[in-house]
Amino acid sequence: MTRRHQTVSFFSDFGLEDEFAGVVRSVIRSVAPQATVVDVTHGIPAHDVRAASLALVRSVQYLAPGVVLAVVDPGVGTDRRAVAVEVGAEGEAVFVGPDNGLLAGAVAMVGGATRAVELTDVKFHLTAPGATFAGRDVFAPVAGYLCNGVDLAEFGPPIDPITLRPGLLPLSRQEEGRLVSEVLWVDHFGNAQLNVDPEDIAAMGDRISLRWGIGQVRTGRLAANYAELKAGEVGLVVDSYGLVSVVLDRRSASEELKLRPGDAVTLEAAS
Amino acid sequence: MTRRHQTVSFFSDFGLEDEFAGVVRSVIRSVAPQATVVDVTHGIPAHDVRAASLALVRSVQYLAPGVVLAVVDPGVGTDRRAVAVEVGAEGEAVFVGPDNGLLAGAVAMVGGATRAVELTDVKFHLTAPGATFAGRDVFAPVAGYLCNGVDLAEFGPPIDPITLRPGLLPLSRQEEGRLVSEVLWVDHFGNAQLNVDPEDIAAMGDRISLRWGIGQVRTGRLAANYAELKAGEVGLVVDSYGLVSVVLDRRSASEELKLRPGDAVTLEAAS
Amino acid sequence: MTRRHQTVSFFSDFGLEDEFAGVVRSVIRSVAPQATVVDVTHGIPAHDVRAASLALVRSVQYLAPGVVLAVVDPGVGTDRRAVAVEVGAEGEAVFVGPDNGLLAGAVAMVGGATRAVELTDVKFHLTAPGATFAGRDVFAPVAGYLCNGVDLAEFGPPIDPITLRPGLLPLSRQEEGRLVSEVLWVDHFGNAQLNVDPEDIAAMGDRISLRWGIGQVRTGRLAANYAELKAGEVGLVVDSYGLVSVVLDRRSASEELKLRPGDAVTLEAAS
Repeated sequence: MTRRHQTVSFFSDFGLEDEFAGVVRSVIRSVAPQATVVDVTHGIPAHDVRAASLALVRSVQYLAPGVVLAVVDPGVGTDRRAVAVEVGAEGEAVFVGPDNGLLAGAVAMVGGATRAVELTDVKFHLTAPGATFAGRDVFAPVAGYLCNGVDLAEFGPPIDPITLRPGLLPLSRQEEGRLVSEVLWVDHFGNAQLNVDPEDIAAMGDRISLRWGIGQVRTGRLAANYAELKAGEVGLVVDSYGLVSVVLDRRSASEELKLRPGDAVTLEAAS
Repeated sequence: MTRRHQTVSFFSDFGLEDEFAGVVRSVIRSVAPQATVVDVTHGIPAHDVRAASLALVRSVQYLAPGVVLAVVDPGVGTDRRAVAVEVGAEGEAVFVGPDNGLLAGAVAMVGGATRAVELTDVKFHLTAPGATFAGRDVFAPVAGYLCNGVDLAEFGPPIDPITLRPGLLPLSRQEEGRLVSEVLWVDHFGNAQLNVDPEDIAAMGDRISLRWGIGQVRTGRLAANYAELKAGEVGLVVDSYGLVSVVLDRRSASEELKLRPGDAVTLEAAS
Repeated sequence: MTRRHQTVSFFSDFGLEDEFAGVVRSVIRSVAPQATVVDVTHGIPAHDVRAASLALVRSVQYLAPGVVLAVVDPGVGTDRRAVAVEVGAEGEAVFVGPDNGLLAGAVAMVGGATRAVELTDVKFHLTAPGATFAGRDVFAPVAGYLCNGVDLAEFGPPIDPITLRPGLLPLSRQEEGRLVSEVLWVDHFGNAQLNVDPEDIAAMGDRISLRWGIGQVRTGRLAANYAELKAGEVGLVVDSYGLVSVVLDRRSASEELKLRPGDAVTLEAAS
């Protein structure tokens, strides 16, 4: 009993200047013309597996059932495995991509893997003039054949999901009454998302001191939205993923405060 | 008698680096898998309601019938209304977005609103961890349910279209034989569109003096297309929207002449 | 016997900041709602017919059958011809665009033109307020009507394919034991593709001296993929199109070595 998929949700670091994402879409369309490709993002910073993994985690609960194609693949052409990972009791979704930690967080978010295979059967690949574009030559046609109802087991030997490379999601930690956090993500609007749940800072009151970089310090105010902040006032807003973000109203907190992904930020009650 | 829509034409200031637009597409696909999302643009400058409103006005006559989803929403999470506005004698199109002036110009262009509602019924929204992404949590599912044939009246209480926030489209004015205009838009190629109809300058002859900024002055020549201009010659071309644009051949007029949206430009016959 | 097409593969230099590509998609959807538009790329540098031609050549073998819509059109509004060019024994694909050399390379790659017409019948065009957006007013509706099964001959008078403007694909040349090549393309990752086949350099060994610019010289090592290169080591990799690219591991060779499209690069065996 195989399942046909209707949707391929597509993530990559290909950018949109070149035809990379478009060629992958074309290959899927050639193999499975009835399927729809939903571009989730191609704006992951080049080679940034961590950023891609976080974007997948943020998005996964909103994706339509089907194939999730994720290609951020600095190890392309090496012996890193190409994999497909099935999730859900009835195989509602299959994640396809390199086994480099990219998929692990999102797979865990939706209940963990039920089956996984290594994509070794070249019958489902394109003949490649070079080894550097597995997105086009391996992952895209496999995504298409999955939509066509080819069973996971056809694509290659089963692998134990426990051997899939884990992702690394940084955790915040309490330290002498302070919370040491990290900027997970800076979005298009310059909002800087921290790995901080609202309850982590519930006891700090509504004015919280933020320290980062070399002696940088600002006081942030808890706010329900951007527009209630005064011009230039630093806000701490529960963002659309339920995490605390450092924001300004209609301006880029990242740019003005020099906050970048990976930066450590310490929070404590403002005195 | 409800109408099912097949197309969602989607405008936003989300950019394409993040997964914002992709997640909205995914939510629509989950609710209404039979509908097609046409991305019109996600490149509106962040928070720029005026630029978005102009992009909608330029595009609206070319859109396929259906839902028009427009999200540029700096007041997200405040008490600004979320609305759906029906146009056309038979409800050919429904505009969905924040009531902040964004929709008004385009709605007027296609004949005005026949019905409008405030989107308050949470049955048609996603449960949101935070209040900052109404595009995903409110507007996307509503767009999907509209495609599925849910009647406008189901989404919330009717509102009088006359109470919808108006847009502000700047008008040019005659002043002592000169025409005082404004740059409405600078496009990807650097062409600077003015709020000037060809007939406004018909009496000025084919060489027109342009003044802007602090003492900047250049003579522009009326031209039918870019390629008839000499290298470096400033042209005034009737652009694809029927307005006069300041252009150079294969170069960016905006960059070379330092013309930005909102700049005032005075035109008069060159002596 | 006309053929209906299901797919429009769409290339342009429109970028994604503006609504240009979105309006073209909307026009196609209005004319042919059953067709799917696959965006291949809109990131061709503005007005760069050579770059667009190369992107088409790289992509064409991967496209789904149907209409190929390519709009990089600096001569829009002049007397340059707008054309449609059919390829394949049974008309599997039709290329639509300006006759400025853009289409020639890709048409040749897939076996050459079987029929061609000039797009002069305004019945299939939109009424245009200005002459500068043929993508929207001419090419998009023609692409839609081709999907609807309108025969090529309906769109205008036949033209002899031999009169189509040729493209210029630069060839590398041997010169006193050295190979003088050119950078064809720099991709999103900064890899610099040369017009060099692997066999052209097969006799040079696995360490090859590269010279470019004013006295710039580096030694590149033949490598099977990016990840086998040491930090900062210059690699020569057979890329996914079967050509030799100058690369670094996870860094931009273009940026660090100052290699731009069109630059001449001389290769010889390293001593």
